[in-house]
Amino acid sequence: MQSFLPAAWAPAIAGALAILLIVVIALILRKIANRLITRVVRRASSSSGGSIAGRLRGKQTTTLEGLDAVAAERRRQRAETIGSVLRPVASIVILGTAALTVLDRLSIPIAPLLTSVGIVGVAVGFGAQELVKDFIAGMFMLLEDQYGVGDVIDAGAAVGTVEAVTLRITQLRDVDGRVWYVRNGTITRVGNESQGWSRATVDVPVAYASDIPAVRDLLKDVVEDMWNEPTYRSVMVEEPQVWGIEQISDTAIVFRISAKTIPARQAEIARELRIRIKSALDRASIAIAG
Amino acid sequence: MQSFLPAAWAPAIAGALAILLIVVIALILRKIANRLITRVVRRASSSSGGSIAGRLRGKQTTTLEGLDAVAAERRRQRAETIGSVLRPVASIVILGTAALTVLDRLSIPIAPLLTSVGIVGVAVGFGAQELVKDFIAGMFMLLEDQYGVGDVIDAGAAVGTVEAVTLRITQLRDVDGRVWYVRNGTITRVGNESQGWSRATVDVPVAYASDIPAVRDLLKDVVEDMWNEPTYRSVMVEEPQVWGIEQISDTAIVFRISAKTIPARQAEIARELRIRIKSALDRASIAIAG
Amino acid sequence: MQSFLPAAWAPAIAGALAILLIVVIALILRKIANRLITRVVRRASSSSGGSIAGRLRGKQTTTLEGLDAVAAERRRQRAETIGSVLRPVASIVILGTAALTVLDRLSIPIAPLLTSVGIVGVAVGFGAQELVKDFIAGMFMLLEDQYGVGDVIDAGAAVGTVEAVTLRITQLRDVDGRVWYVRNGTITRVGNESQGWSRATVDVPVAYASDIPAVRDLLKDVVEDMWNEPTYRSVMVEEPQVWGIEQISDTAIVFRISAKTIPARQAEIARELRIRIKSALDRASIAIAG
Amino acid sequence: MQSFLPAAWAPAIAGALAILLIVVIALILRKIANRLITRVVRRASSSSGGSIAGRLRGKQTTTLEGLDAVAAERRRQRAETIGSVLRPVASIVILGTAALTVLDRLSIPIAPLLTSVGIVGVAVGFGAQELVKDFIAGMFMLLEDQYGVGDVIDAGAAVGTVEAVTLRITQLRDVDGRVWYVRNGTITRVGNESQGWSRATVDVPVAYASDIPAVRDLLKDVVEDMWNEPTYRSVMVEEPQVWGIEQISDTAIVFRISAKTIPARQAEIARELRIRIKSALDRASIAIAG
Amino acid sequence: MQSFLPAAWAPAIAGALAILLIVVIALILRKIANRLITRVVRRASSSSGGSIAGRLRGKQTTTLEGLDAVAAERRRQRAETIGSVLRPVASIVILGTAALTVLDRLSIPIAPLLTSVGIVGVAVGFGAQELVKDFIAGMFMLLEDQYGVGDVIDAGAAVGTVEAVTLRITQLRDVDGRVWYVRNGTITRVGNESQGWSRATVDVPVAYASDIPAVRDLLKDVVEDMWNEPTYRSVMVEEPQVWGIEQISDTAIVFRISAKTIPARQAEIARELRIRIKSALDRASIAIAG
Amino acid sequence: MQSFLPAAWAPAIAGALAILLIVVIALILRKIANRLITRVVRRASSSSGGSIAGRLRGKQTTTLEGLDAVAAERRRQRAETIGSVLRPVASIVILGTAALTVLDRLSIPIAPLLTSVGIVGVAVGFGAQELVKDFIAGMFMLLEDQYGVGDVIDAGAAVGTVEAVTLRITQLRDVDGRVWYVRNGTITRVGNESQGWSRATVDVPVAYASDIPAVRDLLKDVVEDMWNEPTYRSVMVEEPQVWGIEQISDTAIVFRISAKTIPARQAEIARELRIRIKSALDRASIAIAG
Amino acid sequence: MQSFLPAAWAPAIAGALAILLIVVIALILRKIANRLITRVVRRASSSSGGSIAGRLRGKQTTTLEGLDAVAAERRRQRAETIGSVLRPVASIVILGTAALTVLDRLSIPIAPLLTSVGIVGVAVGFGAQELVKDFIAGMFMLLEDQYGVGDVIDAGAAVGTVEAVTLRITQLRDVDGRVWYVRNGTITRVGNESQGWSRATVDVPVAYASDIPAVRDLLKDVVEDMWNEPTYRSVMVEEPQVWGIEQISDTAIVFRISAKTIPARQAEIARELRIRIKSALDRASIAIAG
Repeated sequence: MQSFLPAAWAPAIAGALAILLIVVIALILRKIANRLITRVVRRASSSSGGSIAGRLRGKQTTTLEGLDAVAAERRRQRAETIGSVLRPVASIVILGTAALTVLDRLSIPIAPLLTSVGIVGVAVGFGAQELVKDFIAGMFMLLEDQYGVGDVIDAGAAVGTVEAVTLRITQLRDVDGRVWYVRNGTITRVGNESQGWSRATVDVPVAYASDIPAVRDLLKDVVEDMWNEPTYRSVMVEEPQVWGIEQISDTAIVFRISAKTIPARQAEIARELRIRIKSALDRASIAIAG
Repeated sequence: MQSFLPAAWAPAIAGALAILLIVVIALILRKIANRLITRVVRRASSSSGGSIAGRLRGKQTTTLEGLDAVAAERRRQRAETIGSVLRPVASIVILGTAALTVLDRLSIPIAPLLTSVGIVGVAVGFGAQELVKDFIAGMFMLLEDQYGVGDVIDAGAAVGTVEAVTLRITQLRDVDGRVWYVRNGTITRVGNESQGWSRATVDVPVAYASDIPAVRDLLKDVVEDMWNEPTYRSVMVEEPQVWGIEQISDTAIVFRISAKTIPARQAEIARELRIRIKSALDRASIAIAG
Repeated sequence: MQSFLPAAWAPAIAGALAILLIVVIALILRKIANRLITRVVRRASSSSGGSIAGRLRGKQTTTLEGLDAVAAERRRQRAETIGSVLRPVASIVILGTAALTVLDRLSIPIAPLLTSVGIVGVAVGFGAQELVKDFIAGMFMLLEDQYGVGDVIDAGAAVGTVEAVTLRITQLRDVDGRVWYVRNGTITRVGNESQGWSRATVDVPVAYASDIPAVRDLLKDVVEDMWNEPTYRSVMVEEPQVWGIEQISDTAIVFRISAKTIPARQAEIARELRIRIKSALDRASIAIAG
Repeated sequence: MQSFLPAAWAPAIAGALAILLIVVIALILRKIANRLITRVVRRASSSSGGSIAGRLRGKQTTTLEGLDAVAAERRRQRAETIGSVLRPVASIVILGTAALTVLDRLSIPIAPLLTSVGIVGVAVGFGAQELVKDFIAGMFMLLEDQYGVGDVIDAGAAVGTVEAVTLRITQLRDVDGRVWYVRNGTITRVGNESQGWSRATVDVPVAYASDIPAVRDLLKDVVEDMWNEPTYRSVMVEEPQVWGIEQISDTAIVFRISAKTIPARQAEIARELRIRIKSALDRASIAIAG
Repeated sequence: MQSFLPAAWAPAIAGALAILLIVVIALILRKIANRLITRVVRRASSSSGGSIAGRLRGKQTTTLEGLDAVAAERRRQRAETIGSVLRPVASIVILGTAALTVLDRLSIPIAPLLTSVGIVGVAVGFGAQELVKDFIAGMFMLLEDQYGVGDVIDAGAAVGTVEAVTLRITQLRDVDGRVWYVRNGTITRVGNESQGWSRATVDVPVAYASDIPAVRDLLKDVVEDMWNEPTYRSVMVEEPQVWGIEQISDTAIVFRISAKTIPARQAEIARELRIRIKSALDRASIAIAG
Repeated sequence: MQSFLPAAWAPAIAGALAILLIVVIALILRKIANRLITRVVRRASSSSGGSIAGRLRGKQTTTLEGLDAVAAERRRQRAETIGSVLRPVASIVILGTAALTVLDRLSIPIAPLLTSVGIVGVAVGFGAQELVKDFIAGMFMLLEDQYGVGDVIDAGAAVGTVEAVTLRITQLRDVDGRVWYVRNGTITRVGNESQGWSRATVDVPVAYASDIPAVRDLLKDVVEDMWNEPTYRSVMVEEPQVWGIEQISDTAIVFRISAKTIPARQAEIARELRIRIKSALDRASIAIAG
Repeated sequence: MQSFLPAAWAPAIAGALAILLIVVIALILRKIANRLITRVVRRASSSSGGSIAGRLRGKQTTTLEGLDAVAAERRRQRAETIGSVLRPVASIVILGTAALTVLDRLSIPIAPLLTSVGIVGVAVGFGAQELVKDFIAGMFMLLEDQYGVGDVIDAGAAVGTVEAVTLRITQLRDVDGRVWYVRNGTITRVGNESQGWSRATVDVPVAYASDIPAVRDLLKDVVEDMWNEPTYRSVMVEEPQVWGIEQISDTAIVFRISAKTIPARQAEIARELRIRIKSALDRASIAIAG
């Protein structure tokens, strides 16, 4: 090991220059890394989902206008959120390396430092796995634009309207007003109910003794009437369909009606369909069976 | 390896100076680290949830006044709790490193020490994973202000009113008076029922033979009457809604009524609604069906 | 350790040449690796599934014509997707090695760099396991051509039509219009309903007192009539079969009818069968039993 | 490597002195560590739960007198139990380090020893994870005073009265007399039924046709009568409340009555309430419905 | 570290010879390894299951003739599949070692290379665990000949006919025509329905009031008649047995009949038995009870 | 590295003496370790459960006499079983260390040996985790005397009478005569039904219309009669109690009777209670309701 | 590092002798290891289960004669199976160590070899964990003789008759003829139905109105008659017992009869009991209730 106080000046000056060089290079590298991150993240989040998904999503942009500005803002926010996590990580790596190199240059032993940091680091590292998992999951979720504030999603642990999205957690409000904080890493699959269209499915149980063709025609009339009303047509994507006998259950013959609606309006349409069908069956004296 | 007792005085003095320097630097670094932690934690906990969440939460501050002082106190406590864990960790790292460097300077072999500590450390480290997980989960929960003392939460393992929050555990009291101690790391998602509003949902099963429009009007009258009473209006956020036929069940036509209330008052409103609806249906001689 | 500023020129020139050599070799190796990856991936994805599976799949190519162009396009896209992940990995390994070798050649200490990268790497590595798992699962799924855009699959977490496939996630839309994002690594088994044929199974519960042979003949007549109609024959693979008494249940004798159809048409055939059977039983006055 | 038999006496004496010094320092350090552990544990267990929890628990100390001596004894035992585990761990680390340093001083190779211990250690270490987890869980449970001997707890795996608590296991006796040994590390959440108060909840199903206001008044009379009897008042915390219609079930209108009692007396109060309500309903000829 | 350009020729020639030797040895070792793998795999797959299983399986070879050629072909394919995975692994180990030794001989630093490969390797290694698991599971499954193309198996995740078997996945087609891709490593137990024999089990519920001995005799007559018909005898292994009262259920006395058939024909026999029993009971006016 | 064949005799003799010393010390250490293990284990198993548990268990020793000899024998066997595992482990560590030290002394390279053992060791180590877990669980189970041969326990995986206990597995026989082999490490909690007392709980459902006080008195008479009979009194710990209305179920008012018995006799007492209650209710013409 | 081509002959000869010595020692060690394994395994498998279990199992050897020869053969096969796995492992360790030592002696660098093997080894090692687990589980299962070919076992994943046992898997055939391959490592507990005795349990539900003592006597008569018949007595271990009222169920008073039989004959005895009881109840006009 070299002495702590150098004997001659020549190596000291060389050393000082080397340290200066290291610091300058580190600062330049950090600047480059930050720019790179900004550019990569921006590009990645603007082309989210890639070509195949892009074409499919292309269709649904026609259903609601004026979404472009919202989408652009969302994209900008996403790029910022991801960058705000990646940038400090890059800085820590570059500056930490520079610091260690300088210490090494100065002949200061870095083994004790590494030992201390290592022991604490391993202890924390195991426990922090889940944290890293959450951040990685959140990053990809944002990059792939799986959902955003305002979407109704099924995150497994909870179902509701997204109120906030961070890299670590997703915050939902369910139908009872409960606010759910779900860690992104625990969401293995997510269902988004606010993309493209939704389907209202109404099952109508009629008694075994009912006249099947008559019931079928009656149901067809009900859905046709509803399709012809502008109020409902504006929230439906196509004319509702009577799918026939879905099941011969324990107690009834079950007919199924399917109606494609714009996102998040299916419950409303289903309720209206149920009221109209009940009235029509009553008028035709066809018994509903449990 | 150098001799244990140094032959000449010059290196001894140089060594003593070096050790002194190490100790002084360590103490200064520790002071800086503590200040830094205090500042970072305070800033993080005062801007909890960030911009997107902030705007959404902004709305709900109007429902209950005088919360500002409570929130400030809560924020201060949170910052203190988190700091009380991070500060000793920083101290251990800095002082440990200093101690090892001094030992190394004195030519005392530190390998045996590291070996002993390492063996015990690994043995404990594996088992302590969950502990670290709990602390990390607790820290983020506090930083994001997911819930506080007095909130009614659903922590998965238990549902109840929060009685105490530490970095390791959350203490709840459920409706039967049972006190639950839940480790923060085991809470993968949490539902807070005390933020913004709650919804009371009342299902009314009526017999198949009932007159649907009449039932609908009757239910509308009931909720309107209730909305017009100041006692109930003060705990409701908007006029209750009759959502129509939610389900054609095995034995009945089920109507659903929804009422948005201020947090934690939904059960009360639901019970009042049920009594009023039952009386109204009795008066109108409409049969309830199981 | 050598001095940072070399004393004589000879080793400096030798060093510069060595560095040049390293860089040139690295660039050549990278080019070779990229070509190799392209070729291997293309070959692997064109012979997906291998000989045994190939022969079995051979049969089903007769059911739908004109699929060759689609399949070729799909194959090309798969090769591209996989290559786009493998190529950067190879580049990182080769260029990283070259960079480290050059640094080493220049007598710049690389230990501090490795330490910084290592600590961050381990911290991230644990959390990134799942990410790697997703990519590996996605790669094999693509290579084995388990499913493609447009197929109806059961991915465990969700069932629906594939809308997009990336190396990390599979995007489905279920029957209610919900869009599901499922991580490939969480799909331990996948069921594809769009390969070869599907089967419609219809259970007919008749009362205990029914005349068994009569019911059997009646059901046989129904399926024969249907098989003779060109509309339905075109979507069926073979004549539907009456399998006999499948079960003596709590309340009925249950007959089972099985009809092989072309993929994704089974629900339609099953509904038509149910309507026809119900009518036939009504005509023959045979009671259905729950 | 130095020769095993030293040639001259001077270094031998120096070595002997060094060894003596090591042993003395180790013994002093051990003494200090033991004292430190005793003090820290005692302080930690006397301020269990900290400020927030303390204030809440403060209320419940009024419900039962004479608990102070019991609590002090419990606290002392807890401190002792925790200390009895931490002290040997500290001793092993300090004495092990000293032993290795001495061996190293004597130029005896310690690598073989470390290898043997290491191989056995790793083999055992993996399997002992759960053991360490149990001890850590037990230590925190004791420090936080989550439950003690005599409390009725729900430990997930078993519900019953605590008969013994060690750092590794909790021993319960359930209502059937079965003795349960539950490892502390497997208790992710624990519910303590013996803190503060318990609630007796009685559901009363009455027929649809019942006169709702009459039933309500009748129930109110029953609970008021009971509250006025000193025998029952002494075990209740506040007057029982009639909460109204909790549910319109399949077969009945369900009223709910809630009574806060002192801990562990809720079952008794609930049974008495049921008998009185049944008699009152019989007297008023109101039909109970399943 | 030696100079990159050697000063004298003697060591250079010695080095070149050493490198040549290394390459030659490596190629020879690889050839030997490949041959060894081929031989071991072939021997292992021809004696699949070993002595105990062999004797048991010996019996069932009498049930179906002409299987020898099929089995031999299957065995050859299995050996090939396993060899095609083991051979590249052996090549990578041997050639990689040779390459590293040559680099080392040439005084080229290999640490940077190992570092780069190591970091990527660990990152991928964690995620690839499942992949290795799948391959190992697949290898043993093939060696033990647990199932082959055409067998009907229950793989837990899916039940159906095996369509293809690779080292990584098993491809099944279930009864509804769905094609399942199941990773071999996720199959913890597998049930093969196509080995030796299958059993048809038919439960006959008769009313409490039935004459027990009469029902027993009647059932015995039915199975005897069926056993005497050549069509059914050819698919049955032994005469069906009436096992007596299996259960006194909620609503009926349940008789059980058991019939051993050749593999995969049990459903057919069970259906025929049910039809015959129903007719016989009708003739004897014995009531079936749910 | 020293030459393999020593040039002069002096170091050889010194070396031989050193080796002799190492062997002698190792043998002495081993003897000491064995004695220590014997003493520690014996002391630990004689004071099983410690002070708190001891006092509680103290009560139950009065219920059955002559248990002292059995307990002493059990304790001796436990100490022997645990010692038989710990002793070889200690021997392996001590002798292995000695062997490595001797090899090192003889200048024989031990790195290759460690490498071979290490590779096999890691491969086996991962898989052997569960084995070590089983042994550790078994050791603590024995030390804490959780159960012994003859006890009826609920081990989660199986319930039955303990037939044998080893450090790795517990062997039970359930009520159907099935013998269960349960790995100790998989038993996270165990319930012992043979310690102290058991409780027989009998629920008596009576019709809604029953006279509640009359039923109560009748039940009290039944249990008093039974308590007065010496045959039953000898197996009961205290007089059975009538707990009142436990539940107002769908179809009945349910009374609960509780009887504390000596261990494992509760089923017998419960059956006798049911027969006597049924007869008493019949005599009093009170209807039982499902 | 020594030169590859030695300058003088003396060290070369010394080296050659050393290598020869290493090889000879390795071969001798291997022989010793193999013998040791054979002896240890044989001893371990002949004293399977140890003293406590031995005494208990002693009783059941009286139930079936001529089992000694079978048991001896089984024991021999077990020893052979275990030895066939342990022997190659020992050989690999000893020969691998020798090979590495020889390479090291020849001054051939072994680091590259270890690196290659290490990288592949770790990659495979993680995936092979389960394989090692299976082998360890299989080894202990064989040593403890938990079950053998022909026993009926409940392995959790499947229940059936054991057809083959290897160190990795257990092969069962269930009652439907399905052949199950279960990995030994996935069997956490196993129930063996073929050891000692089995119990037939028959529940007899009679109507509430039945005369309890009369039913009891009638049941006692039935079991006594059956016990007196030699055909049934030979398969029963003791006289069947009438246990009294097991349950007052929703619809009936349930009596329970218990009969201990020799292993695997309980179903037969239970069916005969049911037929006899039904006839006896019919004769006595006592109604069975669901």
